[in-house]
Amino acid sequence: MARITGMDVRDIRFPTSRELDGSDAMNPDPDYSAAYVVLRTDDGPDGYGLAFTIGRGNDVQAAAIKALDHMVVGRPVPETAFELAALSRELVGDSQLRWLGPEKGVAHMAIGAVVNAAWDLAARRAERPLWRFLSELSPEELVAQVDFRYLSDALTEQEALDLLRRPGRAARIAEIERDGYPAYSTGAGWLGYTDEKMVRLAKQAVADGFAMLKLKVGGDLDDDIRRMRLARDAVGPDIRIAVDANQRWDVEPAIKWMQALSEFDPYWIEEPTSPDDVLAHRAIAEAIAPIRVATGEHVQNRVMFKQYLQAGALSVLQIDAARVGGVNENIAILLLAAKFGVPVCPHAGGVGLCELVRHLSMFDYVAISGTQDDRAIEWVDQLHEHFTDPAIVRGGRYLAPTAPGFSARINDEALARYAFPDGPEWSEK
Amino acid sequence: MARITGMDVRDIRFPTSRELDGSDAMNPDPDYSAAYVVLRTDDGPDGYGLAFTIGRGNDVQAAAIKALDHMVVGRPVPETAFELAALSRELVGDSQLRWLGPEKGVAHMAIGAVVNAAWDLAARRAERPLWRFLSELSPEELVAQVDFRYLSDALTEQEALDLLRRPGRAARIAEIERDGYPAYSTGAGWLGYTDEKMVRLAKQAVADGFAMLKLKVGGDLDDDIRRMRLARDAVGPDIRIAVDANQRWDVEPAIKWMQALSEFDPYWIEEPTSPDDVLAHRAIAEAIAPIRVATGEHVQNRVMFKQYLQAGALSVLQIDAARVGGVNENIAILLLAAKFGVPVCPHAGGVGLCELVRHLSMFDYVAISGTQDDRAIEWVDQLHEHFTDPAIVRGGRYLAPTAPGFSARINDEALARYAFPDGPEWSEK
Repeated sequence: MARITGMDVRDIRFPTSRELDGSDAMNPDPDYSAAYVVLRTDDGPDGYGLAFTIGRGNDVQAAAIKALDHMVVGRPVPETAFELAALSRELVGDSQLRWLGPEKGVAHMAIGAVVNAAWDLAARRAERPLWRFLSELSPEELVAQVDFRYLSDALTEQEALDLLRRPGRAARIAEIERDGYPAYSTGAGWLGYTDEKMVRLAKQAVADGFAMLKLKVGGDLDDDIRRMRLARDAVGPDIRIAVDANQRWDVEPAIKWMQALSEFDPYWIEEPTSPDDVLAHRAIAEAIAPIRVATGEHVQNRVMFKQYLQAGALSVLQIDAARVGGVNENIAILLLAAKFGVPVCPHAGGVGLCELVRHLSMFDYVAISGTQDDRAIEWVDQLHEHFTDPAIVRGGRYLAPTAPGFSARINDEALARYAFPDGPEWSEK
Repeated sequence: MARITGMDVRDIRFPTSRELDGSDAMNPDPDYSAAYVVLRTDDGPDGYGLAFTIGRGNDVQAAAIKALDHMVVGRPVPETAFELAALSRELVGDSQLRWLGPEKGVAHMAIGAVVNAAWDLAARRAERPLWRFLSELSPEELVAQVDFRYLSDALTEQEALDLLRRPGRAARIAEIERDGYPAYSTGAGWLGYTDEKMVRLAKQAVADGFAMLKLKVGGDLDDDIRRMRLARDAVGPDIRIAVDANQRWDVEPAIKWMQALSEFDPYWIEEPTSPDDVLAHRAIAEAIAPIRVATGEHVQNRVMFKQYLQAGALSVLQIDAARVGGVNENIAILLLAAKFGVPVCPHAGGVGLCELVRHLSMFDYVAISGTQDDRAIEWVDQLHEHFTDPAIVRGGRYLAPTAPGFSARINDEALARYAFPDGPEWSEK
């Protein structure tokens, strides 16, 4: 029987703050980083996972992953769906570690990184890209991944099974393999970019086939009005333009700001306020309808998403592959979104988030939602060159990954160069 | 000018799991622990703070405190209220570290430990116990501690000022110094105790002057009915008995369980479900009224408490001295509770929580709430001997601390003996 023989954890940081890529109203100078985990086995491929951070504190995130070592190393390689479910439950359930959350922040992202690495490992051994590996699991195997604790007032196991029994998976798998999945572009919209650069990149994105763009807002209202007008003029009325405030506002400023931008037809406002504030999102959503409200990249777990849906506080749900407790919790969140009829448009960008989350959206289409209407995965064309199975977008669509696994593996050259603080990128500056 | 010259962080763990002290429905075998921080100065006393955990992961918590080093060491010792406010704001505002939360979990508890150590330092230099140091600050100085971001839909700066202008502080300070502050006892109610031990300790608590006890529930309903009946028979109808499920239930089981216990007149149900689930608490509160719903020891920040209050989801608010971002955020939470007219009954026990939180309740009485009606601080008679300024309860009341500072200092003998993993308590077993 194959065993997990070791768990390596590395602190990898990319100096993205030097170019203001990724700059927004709350994050002026991020250094996109990964607390990177490798599950070593004595037989066959290793498994790869990561937690995404934006620089300082990536060492804390790495320490939190290392703290899970005793539950992982020495264990048989989880290969079946039920073994993967058991691993996830054991990691989330450790009664002493649970105090550090529960199920939130550094400790929970650490669980997500390890759980995702285990899924990567299982998919590699099955010689399937993760989205196909998931898409071939039975409704019962998928439901077994979900921790229904704290969900039963909104979603029962039977309702989840019914959602997962949607017919036609084979045809949708073929469609994904042929056509991929819709993307939208954030590349033009960073707050640190000049107007000229923003307009040029927005036009380029439309020429490249994107039907939707996103701009960062929330620094200065006059600047935002000017940028939104320039962007709208540049791309015309038929391209969706979403805006993203990265938690900058309280309720009243959010409403006023979005009313001021409404003449430019913003498609959604993302993270108008605290990701913890379900009731504030609801108040904003009610005041600015029909502009949609989106959030998720900082929503800590399925319990918060459940409340957002119960309260009608969001109309676009943004999963993140590396914020919550990994594949298992994201299956729970996708099922909740389907139950409430809310489209899922994942957060991506960062380090490896595009690589990872495309698997989840493609699985969502095949096995849960059955539709791509009003769905698109964020696309930021940054740092992909460091991955062994990089995300590829063509004509405004993510291509279906074909390599086995979950695509979180960073290539050896990047691991050496961007190791913090001793890699040459950091030690030689 | 005095400076902070260093920050020491230690991993201190007490082997409480050996006696089942602290056992409940979610935490069967906690080893009460502190990630302990000392702010060293070049002039005068040092400052002491801690984050409380229950064992595994205390090293991660310590790493998160260390990650704040660069914002603290080398800085002038904050002595005025405005310097303390600036330190808190800088720690919470670090844009890269913020990604690890924001304002929740390991990263936020780390900020709380450092902020509390800074208040300890300032109070020691002013030669005041913290509760008096706080009680002598002006309304303007106190309001300056509060980060109103994400609060303005529930509490404005002007409303906070008005609450803080309550007359009569001097008389209430004298009253606290003379009579202390009410306590309630959890010592009898741990789930791992035998019926005989529970009954004996409950009777002893009443004989000692406590007007309220708390039992842990949520393991098995028949057991809970038996224990609750025994406890009620032991103490009679006039002693309040609260029960605490430590997040064990979903909505429906919580309601059924409390309906089954209602004949024994439980005073509140604490943590019936996930601390993240405002809407579930509201549903439970509506169904089981007039039994009160209490929560807070795992509520991550002021934004969550705000929603609990806005939604009418709790009727007793339980602050914790070491879960949120320190004194500053607890001032915000006390003001929110006052605005909504909800009594605050702090969570304590653990390591040092009784020592710390008594200062906050006494300050609350003097400067904010002005009443002790339906208020009491939890009391667990455990681990106090390791502190240099231990909490003391007599006749069911916490005595007012008189030593300068915030009382988080652990004595040198305990620091040596319980250091993890190299102290003799751990290395010699």
